Amino acid sequence: METASLQQSFMKLRSNKAFELFVIGVIVFSAIVVGIKTYELPTGFLTVVGWLDNLITAIFLAEILIRFTGEERKRDFFKQGWNIFDTIIVIASLVPVEESDMAFIGRLLRIFRVLRMVSIIPELRLLLNSLLKALPQLGYVMLLMFIIFYIYAAIGATLFAHINEVLWGDISIALLTLFRVMTFEDWTDVMYETMTVYPLSWIYYLTFIFLTAFAFLNMVIGIVVSVIEKENAAQEHEQGEPSRAELGKDIAELKQMVRELKDMKS
Amino acid sequence: METASLQQSFMKLRSNKAFELFVIGVIVFSAIVVGIKTYELPTGFLTVVGWLDNLITAIFLAEILIRFTGEERKRDFFKQGWNIFDTIIVIASLVPVEESDMAFIGRLLRIFRVLRMVSIIPELRLLLNSLLKALPQLGYVMLLMFIIFYIYAAIGATLFAHINEVLWGDISIALLTLFRVMTFEDWTDVMYETMTVYPLSWIYYLTFIFLTAFAFLNMVIGIVVSVIEKENAAQEHEQGEPSRAELGKDIAELKQMVRELKDMKS
Amino acid sequence: METASLQQSFMKLRSNKAFELFVIGVIVFSAIVVGIKTYELPTGFLTVVGWLDNLITAIFLAEILIRFTGEERKRDFFKQGWNIFDTIIVIASLVPVEESDMAFIGRLLRIFRVLRMVSIIPELRLLLNSLLKALPQLGYVMLLMFIIFYIYAAIGATLFAHINEVLWGDISIALLTLFRVMTFEDWTDVMYETMTVYPLSWIYYLTFIFLTAFAFLNMVIGIVVSVIEKENAAQEHEQGEPSRAELGKDIAELKQMVRELKDMKS
Amino acid sequence: METASLQQSFMKLRSNKAFELFVIGVIVFSAIVVGIKTYELPTGFLTVVGWLDNLITAIFLAEILIRFTGEERKRDFFKQGWNIFDTIIVIASLVPVEESDMAFIGRLLRIFRVLRMVSIIPELRLLLNSLLKALPQLGYVMLLMFIIFYIYAAIGATLFAHINEVLWGDISIALLTLFRVMTFEDWTDVMYETMTVYPLSWIYYLTFIFLTAFAFLNMVIGIVVSVIEKENAAQEHEQGEPSRAELGKDIAELKQMVRELKDMKS
Repeated sequence: METASLQQSFMKLRSNKAFELFVIGVIVFSAIVVGIKTYELPTGFLTVVGWLDNLITAIFLAEILIRFTGEERKRDFFKQGWNIFDTIIVIASLVPVEESDMAFIGRLLRIFRVLRMVSIIPELRLLLNSLLKALPQLGYVMLLMFIIFYIYAAIGATLFAHINEVLWGDISIALLTLFRVMTFEDWTDVMYETMTVYPLSWIYYLTFIFLTAFAFLNMVIGIVVSVIEKENAAQEHEQGEPSRAELGKDIAELKQMVRELKDMKS
Repeated sequence: METASLQQSFMKLRSNKAFELFVIGVIVFSAIVVGIKTYELPTGFLTVVGWLDNLITAIFLAEILIRFTGEERKRDFFKQGWNIFDTIIVIASLVPVEESDMAFIGRLLRIFRVLRMVSIIPELRLLLNSLLKALPQLGYVMLLMFIIFYIYAAIGATLFAHINEVLWGDISIALLTLFRVMTFEDWTDVMYETMTVYPLSWIYYLTFIFLTAFAFLNMVIGIVVSVIEKENAAQEHEQGEPSRAELGKDIAELKQMVRELKDMKS
Repeated sequence: METASLQQSFMKLRSNKAFELFVIGVIVFSAIVVGIKTYELPTGFLTVVGWLDNLITAIFLAEILIRFTGEERKRDFFKQGWNIFDTIIVIASLVPVEESDMAFIGRLLRIFRVLRMVSIIPELRLLLNSLLKALPQLGYVMLLMFIIFYIYAAIGATLFAHINEVLWGDISIALLTLFRVMTFEDWTDVMYETMTVYPLSWIYYLTFIFLTAFAFLNMVIGIVVSVIEKENAAQEHEQGEPSRAELGKDIAELKQMVRELKDMKS
Repeated sequence: METASLQQSFMKLRSNKAFELFVIGVIVFSAIVVGIKTYELPTGFLTVVGWLDNLITAIFLAEILIRFTGEERKRDFFKQGWNIFDTIIVIASLVPVEESDMAFIGRLLRIFRVLRMVSIIPELRLLLNSLLKALPQLGYVMLLMFIIFYIYAAIGATLFAHINEVLWGDISIALLTLFRVMTFEDWTDVMYETMTVYPLSWIYYLTFIFLTAFAFLNMVIGIVVSVIEKENAAQEHEQGEPSRAELGKDIAELKQMVRELKDMKS
């Protein structure tokens, strides 16, 4: 009986607006602590920040436990991706880290606590979900783009490796160099260097830029089309707007009715 | 009686086309004066420009007073954002500024008089209003983008601070460096430097570029969709085009009428 | 009688497909000659190119005369912008140029003969017309963008002139520097320099980049919306697709007819 | 009889899912081999890679022969562009290459085997086809863009050749320099150099950037519009959605029926 009432009071607490605002406040505060730690601080201040860090970890742990206890079916808690995400971040903060190398990794892990901002604000969660939904559609364009990159990198590493080992040494370095060319970052320096040996190598760079720009544009359009269409469909559905197919069905029924009227007549 | 007639004559003056053109002319002239002042000028010329500046201030003050006096209800005058904007700019010009530091600030304030061009031309005012309306919709995307920037800056400041203090010293410097990376401005120089210590740090840069480009594209689409939809809806409403919902309603009424006709028959 | 028959035979020649192809061929050839002249050539070759140039001028003159003579009403010839454009280019080629400075200008004028490609190919003419139609719509956005540029340039020239005369010396130089910042071309070098004196000047650059990117996006959307809408409207009109307004009118007429039927009944 | 049964068993093999996956696996493996060859390898390893290369060639040859034999009408095999594409790549791998220069070309040819990934995965084939369909529409925009480039290059080579031979020496070099300017890659360095001689040459660069950006945007819009429209039309056709024209026809028929009903009455 006692545990049941505890669960109920936790359920109430979970859906409490003030509790949510408090958690958002703690996350913002943890983000600020993350930021402060990147500045050079006097040792006294560092100790304070360390205590604040532990306090935040404790609050996050308490919050997760409250939300978990407040869940009626314990299994449902882990069915939501965001809950798993939150639990992992909190548990990662709990792992005791030594002073040396591990402390470094511990600091990095605590940075990801800022991501809890996304899981706590519903609008950001929605935004991220809609972005993730557009991703699979882009999978094949990404694959096509990777194939283009891979072929150009293989050609580049074969032809230009002896000109500049740093830029074209092997296929992985060449892939990085091509990504640089795609962002137009000092790409002419790369080109002018190979043009001294192969005067026609500008063909290689220009075709690459055209192909990747084209593939990239297609990706952009893929996102635009899918997002606009979903948005429009959702909006029309909301406003109870009938589709043309529904209008067509209505008109066909009307015709049938008038036809019956004519048959009754004759 | 006299003040009432004064108000009426000012009201007429306000809506006078020639008066508006004169004010636009003065604003353009004040913009030119602002431009001239950035050139190195002989002292004699500087005195002339100073007098012109005071003349423009006087005309602007007179214009504001005319518009204020011409307003029937004085309260309504300050209900319009643009009027408040104009008044602040004019009053800021009136503040007497000494020769030293303050004169400098005075010069900067006078530059903003060019912004009165936006408040005086209705088309620009409309344009800015429509831009401002699209902003709130983008708020959450901006927040998501800031979270991505913040996490990457915290990681960068933690990992790379000992490599280059100037670029990664603390989180605020790291944020600026990441903005630079997003604009592709010499980002490979930044990357190659950290790759000498952490050979895998290219992952950091490439994922950052993909994430911010993706978020940025979403922002662009957000603007495109909202602007296109508003434009289309406004245009259709203007042309008296019925919506599909209205057509559906009309057809449903028709069906009801034919049904009644059939009932009368049988 | 003789001139009339001459005019008719010229009219036939004008609309002759082979004649058009011949003119296109001559334009392409003149473009190649323009290109060849940029190479360092032996004097013998130069004389040949000079003769070819004169030959092209003669052919262009003959073509313009044929088209002018073939026009029934001489006035209509100059009502078409493209005819005026062609005539100016041909006449500019005719102006005798001396060996010295004028020869230089003569050479530049002959380069514009390549533009005749646009006036002779109907598809390119259509394309350019549709681009020009989208321009006025963008006028106010361009004006808004110029105001933003002007204010930032005035602030930049006032604040940063003593830091770097070459980049911020006066307002016209500052405008060029800001255009450079907008294209992200080594903008961080510009920023880092002013940040040594004014550590907060990154605010100036970041707000400028956001504002101009925003205004530029709006311009892009302006073009996209106007072009898509025109394209769609033209296509639907072509296919005889009725508008929703026409469907609504049809349905209203139907209702009226059924209503009359009911009235006849009762 | 035997060859017929062989053909049938090959036809079965062709449409076998496991066989397709095996071929995809071999292509991925050949891509990895292509990548490995760009690294510096010990001679022992090189021999192994050489044998793997020959093995892949043998498998590819066998696969093509299976698909060819499995085809009922031999002519139909070469009617599909992708089959011709595959055959050329396989035959090119078969050509025996000597150790010297030819071996180099042989290595390059084998890189193109990675492209077989596009021909084997149907989704990539579809993607590429839709991209190719959008190309002709862009032809005239590309031509217009080339004319702009050509005119600017001719002017640049005429005016600036004596300033910098490397950038403006002749029209082909000037074209490359202008492409660089269009990608904003260190374009201010190019401009500042010519501005020392011709202080007004910024007009040349700014108008060029505006014109090409404008033409490029138009190209982007061309792709967006055509892809969106095809996508929408295909989707509506799929869902059996009637067009407005079909609705209009239906309503017209209804009107005719009601009119007949009225005529019967009177």
